[in-house]
Amino acid sequence: MTDLPTLRPAAATALAAWHDMVARRDLSDLRSIVHPDATFRSPVAFKPYRSADAVILALSTVMTVFSDFAYHRQAATTDGLNVVLEFSARVGDKGVKGIDFIAFDEEGRIVDFEVMMRPMNGVQALAVEMGKRLGALMPAFKSGV
Amino acid sequence: MTDLPTLRPAAATALAAWHDMVARRDLSDLRSIVHPDATFRSPVAFKPYRSADAVILALSTVMTVFSDFAYHRQAATTDGLNVVLEFSARVGDKGVKGIDFIAFDEEGRIVDFEVMMRPMNGVQALAVEMGKRLGALMPAFKSGV
Repeated sequence: MTDLPTLRPAAATALAAWHDMVARRDLSDLRSIVHPDATFRSPVAFKPYRSADAVILALSTVMTVFSDFAYHRQAATTDGLNVVLEFSARVGDKGVKGIDFIAFDEEGRIVDFEVMMRPMNGVQALAVEMGKRLGALMPAFKSGV
Repeated sequence: MTDLPTLRPAAATALAAWHDMVARRDLSDLRSIVHPDATFRSPVAFKPYRSADAVILALSTVMTVFSDFAYHRQAATTDGLNVVLEFSARVGDKGVKGIDFIAFDEEGRIVDFEVMMRPMNGVQALAVEMGKRLGALMPAFKSGV
């Protein structure tokens, strides 16, 4: 993984905290780096989820669905407030590739967390697994609307 | 769109050419910036397509499927050889978001072009439209395998 010298210091600190949480598979401190009004954009549904609770619930649940998760390339925007993290993982027996496109505010809090994935059958498998776990709480994960 | 000062000069030149082709909706010069052994990774299928011909065919066809296409955030890796281009578009009546994750070689030729999209129903609509246009030539676009 390459360094990200262009990322703002506060964002770099939050990103390091995120990498540490993912490595430990423990998101219990996630709220400390998420803006209260943060938005989560799922690979399954178009409609965004707006609140720190939704971001934390979605990411914590996705973590239970992925296995063999690993980050690869990192890219940043020149304003130092947006980062793209490429990942690979498995959803059941399906291999997937994806990206987390994360926007930070000036204080290093996550304000927008967008996930995209390929291929299609991996997204479909994720939708099924997220639906099982979150269907009642976040219905759009299930319906794909 | 922000500048990308960290991108290597040859890659920056190729990227500017790509943006120009997309803006003109004319990819007839695309081969000039694609490595002969370049790889295309579709949002639909897991299996990559390996050849400049495949990259050119896939991108030229995708261009006929998308409407209201626009690029937004750009991010680059610190080695200056990879860029992420965020886009929005429509596939029929479905709104989609996506990214092009493009890797260049030292000479500014595209060696890897990966596309990811959300949400799921947009990827499904793309698969149907690509299947209609390319099913015989690139069967995995249709089957989603």
